[in-house]
Amino acid sequence: MPDVVRDVAHLSHVELLTTDPDGSIAYFRDALGMEVVGRSKESTYLRAFGEYERCSLKLTASSRAGVGHFAYRTVSAEALDRRVQALDRAGIQGDWLNGDVGHGPAYRFRDPDGHWLEVFFETERYVAPPELAPALKNQPMRYPSRGAGVRNLDHVNLLALNPGANRIFLEDNLGLRLSEQIVLDDGTEAAVWLTSGQKSYDVTYTRDATDTSGRLHHIAYFVDQREDVLRAADICLEFGIEIESGPHKHAIQQTSFLYNWEPGGNRVEICSGGYLIFAPDHKPVVWSQAERAKGQAWGMKTVPSFHIRGSPSVPREAELLSR
Amino acid sequence: MPDVVRDVAHLSHVELLTTDPDGSIAYFRDALGMEVVGRSKESTYLRAFGEYERCSLKLTASSRAGVGHFAYRTVSAEALDRRVQALDRAGIQGDWLNGDVGHGPAYRFRDPDGHWLEVFFETERYVAPPELAPALKNQPMRYPSRGAGVRNLDHVNLLALNPGANRIFLEDNLGLRLSEQIVLDDGTEAAVWLTSGQKSYDVTYTRDATDTSGRLHHIAYFVDQREDVLRAADICLEFGIEIESGPHKHAIQQTSFLYNWEPGGNRVEICSGGYLIFAPDHKPVVWSQAERAKGQAWGMKTVPSFHIRGSPSVPREAELLSR
Amino acid sequence: MPDVVRDVAHLSHVELLTTDPDGSIAYFRDALGMEVVGRSKESTYLRAFGEYERCSLKLTASSRAGVGHFAYRTVSAEALDRRVQALDRAGIQGDWLNGDVGHGPAYRFRDPDGHWLEVFFETERYVAPPELAPALKNQPMRYPSRGAGVRNLDHVNLLALNPGANRIFLEDNLGLRLSEQIVLDDGTEAAVWLTSGQKSYDVTYTRDATDTSGRLHHIAYFVDQREDVLRAADICLEFGIEIESGPHKHAIQQTSFLYNWEPGGNRVEICSGGYLIFAPDHKPVVWSQAERAKGQAWGMKTVPSFHIRGSPSVPREAELLSR
Amino acid sequence: MPDVVRDVAHLSHVELLTTDPDGSIAYFRDALGMEVVGRSKESTYLRAFGEYERCSLKLTASSRAGVGHFAYRTVSAEALDRRVQALDRAGIQGDWLNGDVGHGPAYRFRDPDGHWLEVFFETERYVAPPELAPALKNQPMRYPSRGAGVRNLDHVNLLALNPGANRIFLEDNLGLRLSEQIVLDDGTEAAVWLTSGQKSYDVTYTRDATDTSGRLHHIAYFVDQREDVLRAADICLEFGIEIESGPHKHAIQQTSFLYNWEPGGNRVEICSGGYLIFAPDHKPVVWSQAERAKGQAWGMKTVPSFHIRGSPSVPREAELLSR
Repeated sequence: MPDVVRDVAHLSHVELLTTDPDGSIAYFRDALGMEVVGRSKESTYLRAFGEYERCSLKLTASSRAGVGHFAYRTVSAEALDRRVQALDRAGIQGDWLNGDVGHGPAYRFRDPDGHWLEVFFETERYVAPPELAPALKNQPMRYPSRGAGVRNLDHVNLLALNPGANRIFLEDNLGLRLSEQIVLDDGTEAAVWLTSGQKSYDVTYTRDATDTSGRLHHIAYFVDQREDVLRAADICLEFGIEIESGPHKHAIQQTSFLYNWEPGGNRVEICSGGYLIFAPDHKPVVWSQAERAKGQAWGMKTVPSFHIRGSPSVPREAELLSR
Repeated sequence: MPDVVRDVAHLSHVELLTTDPDGSIAYFRDALGMEVVGRSKESTYLRAFGEYERCSLKLTASSRAGVGHFAYRTVSAEALDRRVQALDRAGIQGDWLNGDVGHGPAYRFRDPDGHWLEVFFETERYVAPPELAPALKNQPMRYPSRGAGVRNLDHVNLLALNPGANRIFLEDNLGLRLSEQIVLDDGTEAAVWLTSGQKSYDVTYTRDATDTSGRLHHIAYFVDQREDVLRAADICLEFGIEIESGPHKHAIQQTSFLYNWEPGGNRVEICSGGYLIFAPDHKPVVWSQAERAKGQAWGMKTVPSFHIRGSPSVPREAELLSR
Repeated sequence: MPDVVRDVAHLSHVELLTTDPDGSIAYFRDALGMEVVGRSKESTYLRAFGEYERCSLKLTASSRAGVGHFAYRTVSAEALDRRVQALDRAGIQGDWLNGDVGHGPAYRFRDPDGHWLEVFFETERYVAPPELAPALKNQPMRYPSRGAGVRNLDHVNLLALNPGANRIFLEDNLGLRLSEQIVLDDGTEAAVWLTSGQKSYDVTYTRDATDTSGRLHHIAYFVDQREDVLRAADICLEFGIEIESGPHKHAIQQTSFLYNWEPGGNRVEICSGGYLIFAPDHKPVVWSQAERAKGQAWGMKTVPSFHIRGSPSVPREAELLSR
Repeated sequence: MPDVVRDVAHLSHVELLTTDPDGSIAYFRDALGMEVVGRSKESTYLRAFGEYERCSLKLTASSRAGVGHFAYRTVSAEALDRRVQALDRAGIQGDWLNGDVGHGPAYRFRDPDGHWLEVFFETERYVAPPELAPALKNQPMRYPSRGAGVRNLDHVNLLALNPGANRIFLEDNLGLRLSEQIVLDDGTEAAVWLTSGQKSYDVTYTRDATDTSGRLHHIAYFVDQREDVLRAADICLEFGIEIESGPHKHAIQQTSFLYNWEPGGNRVEICSGGYLIFAPDHKPVVWSQAERAKGQAWGMKTVPSFHIRGSPSVPREAELLSR
């Protein structure tokens, strides 16, 4: 096994496109307990209480829901340079952005399915204003006493025509590692889970049943206890937020989950648990078509919409759902 | 064993005297997640989400902290009459009040230690306004997404010169039953726990170490999970609320607890768990002086202030604490 | 409202018929954490750690699964006499049994659907042997460190041709109270929840979709935290026990639930939460056909088998499940 | 910031010396839910269900309690060579061991305080026998249904005359990073927390109040939920295991903890929670003498024995405890 220089540190933030900006802001602030930390003409920036960076969510008004981009922070400025050079050598086009609320220059490019990614190094460490100062100095912000009280952005799950091609792209160009995957009987990869660190995943690609490219399946925020996932369900119920599935436990990755839809048209997961990967030579866990068909960990069959809907919504979803 | 007509249904509400009305209101509303449902000149009325009656807490501005009164609801109008007649026969003075926010005529009298009690039957069932309407029709109000999210008033713990005399008073006149007690080596009762129903207690008397009468040890609100007690501690920490003891588990009654002080000068417990009494012929559990000295269930020694402080504060507390 | 003398104290125990006695014993002992406390020729008796009586479960070998009988304890010997006289006056046939492991003379009779009930007063208080002695003297037995660690029998759910008729029977003859019910558009009662105390239910009748009488839907054991329900699901998963539904939260009664099938052919629920009824004049909560169709609290659709299967199994189940 | 090649992957296992081997084995197997996976003449090897390696605990019979050694796995064979060369260059003596149950050749050396460390790469991946096979293929072993159900070895906390010297040693020679520390007013480091990965610590050094070198403060096993820490306390209570402190929450590291003493004379922590370090340029959190004096997160004062006792026990402990 060759020694690896790990250039990518962690998933940093995601930009969601929302058709209902006010509704989305209220959802993330009141139901999830996040904090608004910046605004620009088209966008609002939010953070969860446990994040050391200024923000993990950029909500951008749009005529269609979906993901604007998602971004990884590198371990150093040199590592950022190395990644840009590697992308360049691989013939992948990209361009530099001057930065945004919370971070410095970012290099932007597309994955094979057309989603925008950014990599950057310079970041703004969050310093809480007095009214949000934490009681414990090792916590960036006070724990919110409203809503689900999410701690940090956990992962992004992207729909793609070819999850396998995107896996290879992230392995080769960003050095991410595969932790689990679903391989169908015909050998195609139906879903792949990759990670930049010891969390067992921070990005996932799932086959888009509508044969559309560039769509989002969901983003996920983490809560500390799986009891918090149940509590989040109680809160969604009272807020009238559409719960699609859960709370339940994933067989794959072992995560406790609650899937719901924010008013701006995107699926959001509230998750907890899972496992850390300590092995430097972790062997990816491969699930067969038959194993996936067994449903979730405790036997719940996955609801059909979970395999079909994405953002933005496309007409073919309705057709598939009516079958 | 004689058959018993149970006239008293349940602990209904408590009136707290507060030296900082605004602070107390903010505490119960924001940190505990309660709702303001009424105001009068001197008082503010609050409720927890699971209560079928309009309110369980009356906060009254006062120059001294402590308990104004606590009140039990009877099972019927006839039961109320029976209790008043029984009190009268026992030579206990009392008088009728016209009622208050949330309930009808109440009969008021004092326990042997001088605390005011009320018994009443007519009550106002809470009907939530649209913005607080619950998703589930078997729940009186929506679950709050702020603060500790307490479900209902659980019990009141009163300090007294002679807990045993107060126990006999409540057994004889209200038909409450003793579930657990501490009996010292000299035979005196240091603390008694009584109940009107299947909860293992709704009122407690504890020996006042300062030899003062009429004081309050604490009132308690219930949360559904003991994880919620830990979460309440996180919230108190962030709000800068003084935590006196816990979270931990009581040996006596098995309840998970968190003791903290609200800004108006009263100790408040957030509790969960415990057990129900199903046996109609329950035998009270008696703890000796030596057994109490062992501390709480998991071995934590009870902090000295817990045995000394009450509301209102008296000068002798400081003297005892300095020993 | 007339004053009520409550003669029935609580649900005491249930007899399950099992086609796999060894499997059933292993299930309740190892997966649920119960203790075997007696054996007779055909039956094995078990208890949960929090129960003051000797046992709550009688497992009887049989060629068919189902419920043998279920039993309520009265508040006194006089109350038992009153109930027997009331049953006699109502023309309900019954006979006295000499008693069984854990209790004295019991009066046996059938509900309108043909299930056997027993009422009794004399009971054997459980005294733990040294190896099972609890650390806390207010707990009857040590908390088990194996399996789900259930605290006590919670309720029994019976299938019936006419839930409404059985409701009236229990109200009139045992003094149980209705807390919630499902009333279909045609006015028939599809399900009723009744209680003998402050728990919101201890017996339920549900319409049998197979038009069979005398069957069992499930029995339920209680765990303290809803986290324990999730943990029970993890344990069932590892034991290879068939999970039918959950963990999830009931809209009706608000209970957290996990339904699974014990090896002897009976559905068992592991439950937590719910609410206590404090109001002496509680108004039953009525759910309409449309409201029930919404599924469980967090939106999960109830699995079809839940509405069809019972014990013993009947051929018509397969027919209905295949529709 | 220079790019770092991270040679050390994770804390792998620890060897405890026990004066009561049978008692220690029973403790880790029955109370913690671990599995015995190997035996040699003097030692017994155990594992927790979530560990990918064969074992994390070696219990060795001894006349004195304490730590035998603790071991880190490297990311590769080359990384192991690099670490050995670095140690050699630094003038630190060491020698190669042939390996042990569960792993291959290991290089052994001492930290400045005299504790034995080992680094190794070749490991034996755990393959569960049929009776312990997990239901989910991404889990190495079935979740135990007995005891506290610990998932993995979390960290080791060593007592030392000079925590700061040991910190520098591990930073320089193994590439561990400091996450938090206590620095007294006179500038000395009273405690340091270091990590090899994204967990915020896997090794800690604390000043030994008895001025002894080479002692152990405690080892810690991880449970998934902080509710599991409370449940572990209930289990310790029933097993008669000495609970020293907790359950509570550390201010430093935010971990939920329960400290207890295993029969063989060593302190064991059961912990949960805490936080992950995502920042590649994490700034260590420094706590002052005054900040540490505030006690634990929710205000509990640390018990004196926690600052004094270690293993093996030394006479000076008694003297310090009696002050």
